[in-house]
Amino acid sequence: MIDHLSRVDGTRVLADLHALRAIGAYKTGVHKPTFSEPHIRSLQWLEQRLPEAGLTGEIDGIGNVLGISTKPGPKLLAGSHLESQNYAGWLDGPLGVVYALEAARVINRDPNMNGAVEVASWCDEEAHFGHFLGSRSYVGGVTEADIDAARDRNSGKSMRDALREAGLAGRARARCERGRHIGYLEAHIEQGETLESSGLGIGIVTSIVGIWQYRIAFTGEQNHAGTTRMAIRRDAGLALARFCVDIDDRFPAACGPRTVWTTGRITLDPGAPSIIPGAAEMLFQIRDDDPAVIARLEDLLRSMAAEVDKQGRCSVAVERIRTGAPAMMDISFQEAIEQASATFAGGRSLRMPSGAGHDAQTLATVMPAGMLFVPSIGGISHHWTENTADADIVTGAEVFVEACRRLLAR
Amino acid sequence: MIDHLSRVDGTRVLADLHALRAIGAYKTGVHKPTFSEPHIRSLQWLEQRLPEAGLTGEIDGIGNVLGISTKPGPKLLAGSHLESQNYAGWLDGPLGVVYALEAARVINRDPNMNGAVEVASWCDEEAHFGHFLGSRSYVGGVTEADIDAARDRNSGKSMRDALREAGLAGRARARCERGRHIGYLEAHIEQGETLESSGLGIGIVTSIVGIWQYRIAFTGEQNHAGTTRMAIRRDAGLALARFCVDIDDRFPAACGPRTVWTTGRITLDPGAPSIIPGAAEMLFQIRDDDPAVIARLEDLLRSMAAEVDKQGRCSVAVERIRTGAPAMMDISFQEAIEQASATFAGGRSLRMPSGAGHDAQTLATVMPAGMLFVPSIGGISHHWTENTADADIVTGAEVFVEACRRLLAR
Repeated sequence: MIDHLSRVDGTRVLADLHALRAIGAYKTGVHKPTFSEPHIRSLQWLEQRLPEAGLTGEIDGIGNVLGISTKPGPKLLAGSHLESQNYAGWLDGPLGVVYALEAARVINRDPNMNGAVEVASWCDEEAHFGHFLGSRSYVGGVTEADIDAARDRNSGKSMRDALREAGLAGRARARCERGRHIGYLEAHIEQGETLESSGLGIGIVTSIVGIWQYRIAFTGEQNHAGTTRMAIRRDAGLALARFCVDIDDRFPAACGPRTVWTTGRITLDPGAPSIIPGAAEMLFQIRDDDPAVIARLEDLLRSMAAEVDKQGRCSVAVERIRTGAPAMMDISFQEAIEQASATFAGGRSLRMPSGAGHDAQTLATVMPAGMLFVPSIGGISHHWTENTADADIVTGAEVFVEACRRLLAR
Repeated sequence: MIDHLSRVDGTRVLADLHALRAIGAYKTGVHKPTFSEPHIRSLQWLEQRLPEAGLTGEIDGIGNVLGISTKPGPKLLAGSHLESQNYAGWLDGPLGVVYALEAARVINRDPNMNGAVEVASWCDEEAHFGHFLGSRSYVGGVTEADIDAARDRNSGKSMRDALREAGLAGRARARCERGRHIGYLEAHIEQGETLESSGLGIGIVTSIVGIWQYRIAFTGEQNHAGTTRMAIRRDAGLALARFCVDIDDRFPAACGPRTVWTTGRITLDPGAPSIIPGAAEMLFQIRDDDPAVIARLEDLLRSMAAEVDKQGRCSVAVERIRTGAPAMMDISFQEAIEQASATFAGGRSLRMPSGAGHDAQTLATVMPAGMLFVPSIGGISHHWTENTADADIVTGAEVFVEACRRLLAR
């Protein structure tokens, strides 16, 4: 009986994931924005599962779910999130929550296993209302004024209204109890193609990269697109295009091995077909886990801007609007995942940074934290076609639970 | 007495322009969108001036004003427009209307002068509701269904509602009577800096360039800006930026001496800071008066797109969405303006194409047409700081009236 309890049930893991996929289904993915009806139903689904894992808990005043154990011994916190990007994939978030739930089911009611796994679902990791509001609330980083100010990025609805409609207004927010947990473990789909293309089963996250974001604004001279000769134009849009190309040509020589950079938005002003843009703006982002690399790239960016200024045709202003804080994953957590991978994934694991942000980076500010990845088919993410092979999902669960066991047994 | 009548009154010309500037004033410019209250008041102002020029006429069913003469002999049609771009300059349009009015005042009531000048104000040259709706209505190019469909590009108000509110619903539209006019003459500010930078007073328009417009759409692969390595990205926004730079690098070797091209709008999809754009689109425009030049540039554009396709990272679709029709100005009109410039502007004139569109291009489809430009200070246009020196305005009026006289005397 104890033997039965102590084993990961792959069928149960897949069934749970499919149950969550059925709530707010969209094509083969889901559409569960934060505080939408399917999101709240998913949180309630988790709340109802907690007792079978020996946990008690409910949805708190910011939409987090915390399952608490009364079992003696060390406690490991584990989880992820249940809302989704709009019209996106079924595993981004739920995978880590279901793995945590499975670990709690396997470990918490087994008297022969040391300690307990406590399960968390962090609200709004997908940033419909802000940045990691749920996990930041848990570690004490969100004020009531922050909540007053937060609005849904699509609908503009205030977070207060959304909380009220979800029946969560007035509830207390769960807060981290310092010293309660030996650390935090989170599983997630990779969202890239590194594991798949290398034939590997488990990614051991070494760090979560920081995100540095810049508003780069070009000022030229707005003029008539028919009467202004090419030779005298001060076209801010063209200056912006040249700058984008210049970044792409010059960053590779200065970046780190896994640096990524992206121009996600471009706006020309006034944006009319017959007017030479007098102003233009780009949103530019760099991600790396090494602030020294970022410092080098930001220097390059500013010197490139100075070169444009010097040419005298258009002026450029580079404004950093987000400063990244890379989070290092705990070494002993990495080792526990690696040892678990040796047992359950034939050692097919790779240590790698996470290019995406995760709640683990917030938890890492108050306790040791670790993350493991399972492969994403085709590297696709934030799209309803996002998927992972069933066998990889089950292997990931086995590695995850074994890593929890090892961390609690230390 | 006759001598007095036959002379251009520069003070009167400036006073008329200032009277129109005072209607809908905005800073040192005006804000008179089509069918706005100040626009209608400007049309009424013109209507009231017609009798002093020996003309009768009223605002027609599309907002044109046509001043008709009963004087025997040849008739020359002259005019421009009275509405403005939003928050724009005071001379763009009114200059040509007031010159035409002055020519009619000088010529029509003088029994020693041959024929008459008829004055037109064409509605909506500034394209609030469509393309040259007023002048196109006059030459028979606008159906009732076109008017039914037209909407204000800013407010979305239907043209029918705007006409009703202006009290013009149900009025007949003036139509061109074939053979009535020996041609059409229009004066306008240059809107560029060619005349000013060359120290010249009069531009003799040889042609009005055609506008060819393209929607250039790039398709790559939308992906996560943190987890997708640079090496495997298919960034549609970056492909677009490279294309813009490529155009700027390669067009000069293939274009004509006065070709201009402009990327006026860029859109990245989805336009979020953390998502690699999977699609991107630019609105691109080329202007020239030589269709052979355009054909060469369009070939180049399509071959550049084919090169991008061949690289296999992103695909490009080039769609022509507007096909230009350059309008040639009548040679004898050019000669009349040149001779008039020799007399009244010390020969400081230049034959040049117009990079901007004007109602003269519509009139040129049914009668000989000519245009003259006066200098724009700093080449500025479509902005409330647009201006021309008083002396240049008066010289322009003298050249304009003399050109009318010469054309009627032939």
